Amino acid sequence: MLRTKEEYHERLFSMRNNIYVGGQRVGRDDSRLRPGINVLDVTFDLAQDPRWKGLATAISSVTGEEINRWNHLPQNPYDLLQKQKAIRLAARRVGGCIQRCMGHDAINALAIYTKEIDEAEGTDYHARFISYLRGYQLEDLDGTCCQTDAKGDRLKRPSQQENPDSYVHVVEKKKDGVVVRGIKMSITQAAYADVFFVIPTRALKEEDADYAIAFAVPADEDGIKVVTRPVWLRDKDEPHVAPFCTYGVSDSVIIFDDVFIPWERVFMCGEWQYGRRLALLFANSHRHSYCGCKPALSDVLCGATLLAAEANNVDKVFHVREKLSKYVGTAELAYAAGVAAAVYGKKTSSGVFFPNEIYANVGRRLTGESIYHEYNILTEVAGGISVTLPFAEDFGAPETREELTRFIVRNPYINAEEALKIWKFVENVGASPMTAWYLIAGVHGGGSPVMETIALNSEYDYDERKRLARYLAGIDAEFDDSKLRTLEPSFGDGLVEERKINNKNN
Amino acid sequence: MLRTKEEYHERLFSMRNNIYVGGQRVGRDDSRLRPGINVLDVTFDLAQDPRWKGLATAISSVTGEEINRWNHLPQNPYDLLQKQKAIRLAARRVGGCIQRCMGHDAINALAIYTKEIDEAEGTDYHARFISYLRGYQLEDLDGTCCQTDAKGDRLKRPSQQENPDSYVHVVEKKKDGVVVRGIKMSITQAAYADVFFVIPTRALKEEDADYAIAFAVPADEDGIKVVTRPVWLRDKDEPHVAPFCTYGVSDSVIIFDDVFIPWERVFMCGEWQYGRRLALLFANSHRHSYCGCKPALSDVLCGATLLAAEANNVDKVFHVREKLSKYVGTAELAYAAGVAAAVYGKKTSSGVFFPNEIYANVGRRLTGESIYHEYNILTEVAGGISVTLPFAEDFGAPETREELTRFIVRNPYINAEEALKIWKFVENVGASPMTAWYLIAGVHGGGSPVMETIALNSEYDYDERKRLARYLAGIDAEFDDSKLRTLEPSFGDGLVEERKINNKNN
Amino acid sequence: MLRTKEEYHERLFSMRNNIYVGGQRVGRDDSRLRPGINVLDVTFDLAQDPRWKGLATAISSVTGEEINRWNHLPQNPYDLLQKQKAIRLAARRVGGCIQRCMGHDAINALAIYTKEIDEAEGTDYHARFISYLRGYQLEDLDGTCCQTDAKGDRLKRPSQQENPDSYVHVVEKKKDGVVVRGIKMSITQAAYADVFFVIPTRALKEEDADYAIAFAVPADEDGIKVVTRPVWLRDKDEPHVAPFCTYGVSDSVIIFDDVFIPWERVFMCGEWQYGRRLALLFANSHRHSYCGCKPALSDVLCGATLLAAEANNVDKVFHVREKLSKYVGTAELAYAAGVAAAVYGKKTSSGVFFPNEIYANVGRRLTGESIYHEYNILTEVAGGISVTLPFAEDFGAPETREELTRFIVRNPYINAEEALKIWKFVENVGASPMTAWYLIAGVHGGGSPVMETIALNSEYDYDERKRLARYLAGIDAEFDDSKLRTLEPSFGDGLVEERKINNKNN
Amino acid sequence: MLRTKEEYHERLFSMRNNIYVGGQRVGRDDSRLRPGINVLDVTFDLAQDPRWKGLATAISSVTGEEINRWNHLPQNPYDLLQKQKAIRLAARRVGGCIQRCMGHDAINALAIYTKEIDEAEGTDYHARFISYLRGYQLEDLDGTCCQTDAKGDRLKRPSQQENPDSYVHVVEKKKDGVVVRGIKMSITQAAYADVFFVIPTRALKEEDADYAIAFAVPADEDGIKVVTRPVWLRDKDEPHVAPFCTYGVSDSVIIFDDVFIPWERVFMCGEWQYGRRLALLFANSHRHSYCGCKPALSDVLCGATLLAAEANNVDKVFHVREKLSKYVGTAELAYAAGVAAAVYGKKTSSGVFFPNEIYANVGRRLTGESIYHEYNILTEVAGGISVTLPFAEDFGAPETREELTRFIVRNPYINAEEALKIWKFVENVGASPMTAWYLIAGVHGGGSPVMETIALNSEYDYDERKRLARYLAGIDAEFDDSKLRTLEPSFGDGLVEERKINNKNN
Repeated sequence: MLRTKEEYHERLFSMRNNIYVGGQRVGRDDSRLRPGINVLDVTFDLAQDPRWKGLATAISSVTGEEINRWNHLPQNPYDLLQKQKAIRLAARRVGGCIQRCMGHDAINALAIYTKEIDEAEGTDYHARFISYLRGYQLEDLDGTCCQTDAKGDRLKRPSQQENPDSYVHVVEKKKDGVVVRGIKMSITQAAYADVFFVIPTRALKEEDADYAIAFAVPADEDGIKVVTRPVWLRDKDEPHVAPFCTYGVSDSVIIFDDVFIPWERVFMCGEWQYGRRLALLFANSHRHSYCGCKPALSDVLCGATLLAAEANNVDKVFHVREKLSKYVGTAELAYAAGVAAAVYGKKTSSGVFFPNEIYANVGRRLTGESIYHEYNILTEVAGGISVTLPFAEDFGAPETREELTRFIVRNPYINAEEALKIWKFVENVGASPMTAWYLIAGVHGGGSPVMETIALNSEYDYDERKRLARYLAGIDAEFDDSKLRTLEPSFGDGLVEERKINNKNN
Repeated sequence: MLRTKEEYHERLFSMRNNIYVGGQRVGRDDSRLRPGINVLDVTFDLAQDPRWKGLATAISSVTGEEINRWNHLPQNPYDLLQKQKAIRLAARRVGGCIQRCMGHDAINALAIYTKEIDEAEGTDYHARFISYLRGYQLEDLDGTCCQTDAKGDRLKRPSQQENPDSYVHVVEKKKDGVVVRGIKMSITQAAYADVFFVIPTRALKEEDADYAIAFAVPADEDGIKVVTRPVWLRDKDEPHVAPFCTYGVSDSVIIFDDVFIPWERVFMCGEWQYGRRLALLFANSHRHSYCGCKPALSDVLCGATLLAAEANNVDKVFHVREKLSKYVGTAELAYAAGVAAAVYGKKTSSGVFFPNEIYANVGRRLTGESIYHEYNILTEVAGGISVTLPFAEDFGAPETREELTRFIVRNPYINAEEALKIWKFVENVGASPMTAWYLIAGVHGGGSPVMETIALNSEYDYDERKRLARYLAGIDAEFDDSKLRTLEPSFGDGLVEERKINNKNN
Repeated sequence: MLRTKEEYHERLFSMRNNIYVGGQRVGRDDSRLRPGINVLDVTFDLAQDPRWKGLATAISSVTGEEINRWNHLPQNPYDLLQKQKAIRLAARRVGGCIQRCMGHDAINALAIYTKEIDEAEGTDYHARFISYLRGYQLEDLDGTCCQTDAKGDRLKRPSQQENPDSYVHVVEKKKDGVVVRGIKMSITQAAYADVFFVIPTRALKEEDADYAIAFAVPADEDGIKVVTRPVWLRDKDEPHVAPFCTYGVSDSVIIFDDVFIPWERVFMCGEWQYGRRLALLFANSHRHSYCGCKPALSDVLCGATLLAAEANNVDKVFHVREKLSKYVGTAELAYAAGVAAAVYGKKTSSGVFFPNEIYANVGRRLTGESIYHEYNILTEVAGGISVTLPFAEDFGAPETREELTRFIVRNPYINAEEALKIWKFVENVGASPMTAWYLIAGVHGGGSPVMETIALNSEYDYDERKRLARYLAGIDAEFDDSKLRTLEPSFGDGLVEERKINNKNN
Repeated sequence: MLRTKEEYHERLFSMRNNIYVGGQRVGRDDSRLRPGINVLDVTFDLAQDPRWKGLATAISSVTGEEINRWNHLPQNPYDLLQKQKAIRLAARRVGGCIQRCMGHDAINALAIYTKEIDEAEGTDYHARFISYLRGYQLEDLDGTCCQTDAKGDRLKRPSQQENPDSYVHVVEKKKDGVVVRGIKMSITQAAYADVFFVIPTRALKEEDADYAIAFAVPADEDGIKVVTRPVWLRDKDEPHVAPFCTYGVSDSVIIFDDVFIPWERVFMCGEWQYGRRLALLFANSHRHSYCGCKPALSDVLCGATLLAAEANNVDKVFHVREKLSKYVGTAELAYAAGVAAAVYGKKTSSGVFFPNEIYANVGRRLTGESIYHEYNILTEVAGGISVTLPFAEDFGAPETREELTRFIVRNPYINAEEALKIWKFVENVGASPMTAWYLIAGVHGGGSPVMETIALNSEYDYDERKRLARYLAGIDAEFDDSKLRTLEPSFGDGLVEERKINNKNN
């Protein structure tokens, strides 16, 4: 099933009112949440669009039916390339974060991990999860991932916290399910998701066993409060509001106050040894998603910078062109890292094809290290006008309209109306509440650069480099370079098959 | 005379209502302007404070009386060092831009340039200006500098513009004065300044002679419209609002619609050859001011980062300390550049002591190149919380208060109330409308890095380095290094004298 | 045919003595050229090694026989991935530049361009070239590419130069061929190549038609002088010299003094419109090669830094690990760019599969921008010892041996002999004549970062980003994002076929 | 007394042969040491030059006589400014490191520390040191500082080392003196210094008391071996060798093999609590010296880059000018840091005026962080020619002379001879053994950036910034900003007096 956005809304607006914004409990149809919902709408619209079949949609490995790409388990490198492309496509349309990758990355992490734990421990989580996923795909639900816990004192482990609710944990095991409580924070998309996938945020020790818990739960389940901070552009609802201003985002603190989860939706319960694996699977899948969305944000910044340069009539100047090319560097290197992660990814025992961690991490890290610099370039080229331009109302008021309208023209080929739209856009992109969100999410979302550094340092084969150096230095007589042979791209007949199917759908 | 802030307000609020904000004409007592006025207040308060006599005040070279430091013409390097220190002091108190340096830098540029043009051309601008300045100092007025013109098409000179009002210019010379029109933009502080000093923004050619105009004018003169965009923090007026939230800033587009200026306040009229000199004098003085204020902003960022680190209980971690030390580098290198500019400055023919341009420019450029990176550090250390934390109201609402209050505690030594204040401050410093202003003003205010690069490339003695290289390479037999001898610090008996006077005042 | 290195040497040493080093004409068996020849040897050895069949070798699209990978025309993305891997493999073995990619990139550029010009102009260059290539592959020759001309005054075009020989050009056309003269410079590998491929270095205008010349010529042809500057490590020939010290490189100025080229080896003669295309084809192919070799250099630097850290007993320190991870970022982002260039490359009309230019350029640019920084990291971690350590002889001399031997031990697990080898290696990698070469070639080889910026700025679809921004800003009602659909990876059945063949060979 | 360089040589060449180079014991007149001695010569020449009296010389605070500036104890900020200037002057002449600041910084550290320990402990080290210094000044000796110990295992303290000689220490106390042994390393200038000042390299604990030892000793004392690694340019001794090629440097491992030091030259012996203070005094004085010499190196690089740009006829191009301005930024910010360190330095109890540590450290750190980047700029502008140009001999050899001579001309205003000198200079500056030394010493000499970060983090008043943030955040009601008042420049009558004397000498 491929829901329309209207069907998505209908279900959403009929949910229990457990969203809190600014001190009040509100419905999911609260106007402050709408800009975020508009973003999700794009993921439904694209799947309805015949032009994007096979990209915004995929053939489910579970049901054999056509489903939304974001609800799909990638089966081969081509699927990962398509995912990257679908994210870049959608992220361009909304001018930034598409939010729905959260659910995608969660189902992939759960599909892989449940298979692995079953194989090792003889549990039956995988069948349970796939059974759940079948319904999720059939109903075309939208889930988000609740990973980051409140954490409390960062020098202490979950079980050592003074406030035990700093991490979500099991408080009671019943015959038919478990009762969980605790707080998750900084959860994007939660206020308008159908479902939450809850997973651990870190490696755990034996004494943290109660914190080894993973499950799926409807977003309006009894006992759940979603305290939401939406971010959007407070522009007046003009008849022709700029598309960029119609999109927003939101993050939530989610309070689980003794919530009951039936066993069929529990995918980890006490297996602390797998906390790190599940946490990393989500993180690494999410970092691969970043290799698709962050290039789109660079596309937006590049376009905004180019518009500003044009409005200032300096778009042909060499050092402006040189600055523009920095966006190309960041966008395409990150995108390339995603491509390499796909090409050199691997088939997991679950059948899910997973991106190569090294490439996913170098790509994500680059974007996190570059984000402030990318906004700096926009500012350098645009000048100070985005924070000193009179308010829009002054451009309309009788006493100031005429002078201001003439004043704003800087390039003979760009009239006042267009110039105003450009500068308003530059302000919205580069000097607005959305800017603050994009700068900070650009550093921390999906793990900040220091997290990728840690991931790289634990995964990269430094020892091979050391052995190479020992050989070249004349310390060791030999250097075994056979590992390089094993770096084989994963293109197989299956892939070609898959593409044929996809192409037929187009 | 040293006015109190109340006296400053009284005069301000009695001015003609020619301020426009958001489509409406408002009085200078409009609440949206108040945060900016609060900043100016600090400059009046400091001068009233006996502890800061000799720093926030100075003995006027014109009247011999004690005046506000910001209305003073520096006479020696010590005066410049005191100016730097006074700016850093005040800028710390308001958490950023002190705004009043605009007037300071304008009167210095005018004092120097008028003397020079008189010497060269036999005009009498200097006496005229000093006469005006005498009254300005006696009344303890606050002026801002109107330099940046609307500019229009940047590929054309003033006289080539389709819209002649893109630059302020003379439209009529009368017996008793001149009539001017045109538009200035991005003028900080204009909405609550007593006086405007209007000067050219660039080098001029003979055909631009009408644009070679400099003058002083009351801010509410007939024909002037000030279209203002204030920036402030929209926090509720709680009983104990954080000091940082009480301060703001504003920039204005200023429309001169056939404004009459009597000759006694005209300081340039047609002498296009001096446009560049006057423009640069203001710019370079202003860049020296930045060497005082930007270190204060780094102080604020450093403190905010440290508070965030403490709230996260990571303030002892080595890589956090390493990041903190980046603020020290930027702040103290820029401050040192200001010190060197003072020590190796020079006495101009007007008696005004002027900072060394090379040092003022390398200092200002460093801050402009570093500003985004400095905010990046705050974000790296603070985490994503400043854009994902629930709104303050949720921390007070009955249904969410209890959980959120426990949730916010991360360090056992920092309670919920303090933690909330810290995270709110981190948000206000790093993810608010003030942030956008500080980021963008940090790049462009006083001239963006590319302007300092151009200034350096026109002033620096590259030829000396080339001759050095030719000598070392064996191309030239000799290298004349005597120029280094002429780099003598300007400490003299006068300086010592001055300090004695200042110290007596302390 | 796959020559052994001995066969390569035999042919080489029997060539005419037209190499000049340090003021003397020498044979190709001169000891100063040997370190460079040792590098080429590795490319022959690898092809002989059964473990590397299908990687160091390929099935020729021309002859259908197994040939050296470096003499192959890639037919699909897998071929490009294999090329990258083969280069990284070989470059690790020699600790840096493998040199032989020069010929590889030249034959690819010529194969593509000749087909295109034939299609457009009705010439028959392609058949001529393929015919030549057939012999080249059959004999397993090693060619280098002579692209960079002496250039003379860089503000003038070839035909405007005072010295017409600043660029290689045709001086006479004969019935059976052409006579060329002029000077090429900075030509790597020339002193021990069998063959030179000569191509233009830049776009040309009609008046430069004589400079539109491309051909192949034996390296010892009459009229050719090769003035060579070898770079190598002047270590004594100890019995167990470190492998790194046995490898070197060389660059040459090549003087063409009226050299006759028969038509069958002439591939461009006067078609000035194609100068830019041919120049860029080589450059872009070469930049893709860099995406394979520069990661290997990062591997070597990473290993050297790790050895130094270990010798200093600081290899577990967090900020050392963080620095190490910088090598991962540069190496794997560049490698990923090469992968994406392969995956999103395109089949040319010649049948040659060519890497995507955007990805090849962002990858190469990253390495050029990072190279000095990468060496900086080695220095930071290793300390000053690589330029202050006593000479090796002092460690052996009776009067100083004992103290120095004890002195050099810093880590109880690394004895004096090993420590000495490590520090000598660190010096050879980071503070030797080879270092200077790698730093400078790292910036300029294959085109410096500014050249990639120019290439990106001419190829990147900035206009698409501008249209995206215009849409988001509300200026245009629509945004056509269909271009993204066309970004399809080039995996096809042919690829799978090819891999099967390759795998069978393994 | 102001020795001539001839007198310096005479004493040097009559010393005991205890220098070891490349496995042999050599005299101080060994030709490989000469380039380093040529550097020291400049410090003697300058002091003889009447033009530089008062700069290269000073009036001794000990003897009242005119002495070499490098042997002087600064008494006021002007002395520190003069020191900076003298170093920049001399460093320009030799194209880099002047080496003699080592002794200067050592005597200052010893003068200050001995006074402080005497005041605290009732010892009489200060009188002892001043008595020694009197003779040192009267004889115009040249000393170097031996600080860096061999260190052995860096995770262990001196007293924990397996090899006790890893740090210099006392092995026996006698009635008339002490016997010391151990190894110092990376000691610049040692091979041609008259005297060694030996001081601790780090903070010490009680069990390290034997390692708390400081003394002065003649460089050829019995028991001392100096194992030296000279660095120089191996250019042929042509009649007109380029000045840059005549200068070099050297570092030594110094073996103290039971060396007897009479009490009158012992300045610390067992007072482990003062180890850190003495070590830091030298380090910080030395970092201030860097604020003079590193700008000179930037001057040389700037000049070399400009020459290369000119030879390439691109010296007017904007992005070349922009790159040049980077040298200005680094050079003048570091120099400014030195100026601020002087202006805000302080008078110690010994009477020595000491630079402000914060400014000295931010200045030195900047240079250490920038050095690789500065060389990168030279490479970017110069191109690859410095490692690919044929050897000088080829430009003279009959068979290649004519073509190469024409080939090298790229700018019609620069003939072949001049062009060759330029490119040779660019190579010597940017791609020679001296380059490696300058790159690595630029990072580590005087303490690497991480050492300055540690120094800043221990000295900077972070707490003040935190209190500022707490006030602005509304946590604390007050902020005590009085500390800023105490930041007073140290200009006094004494300074003016001093300047009069100095000026009279001019």
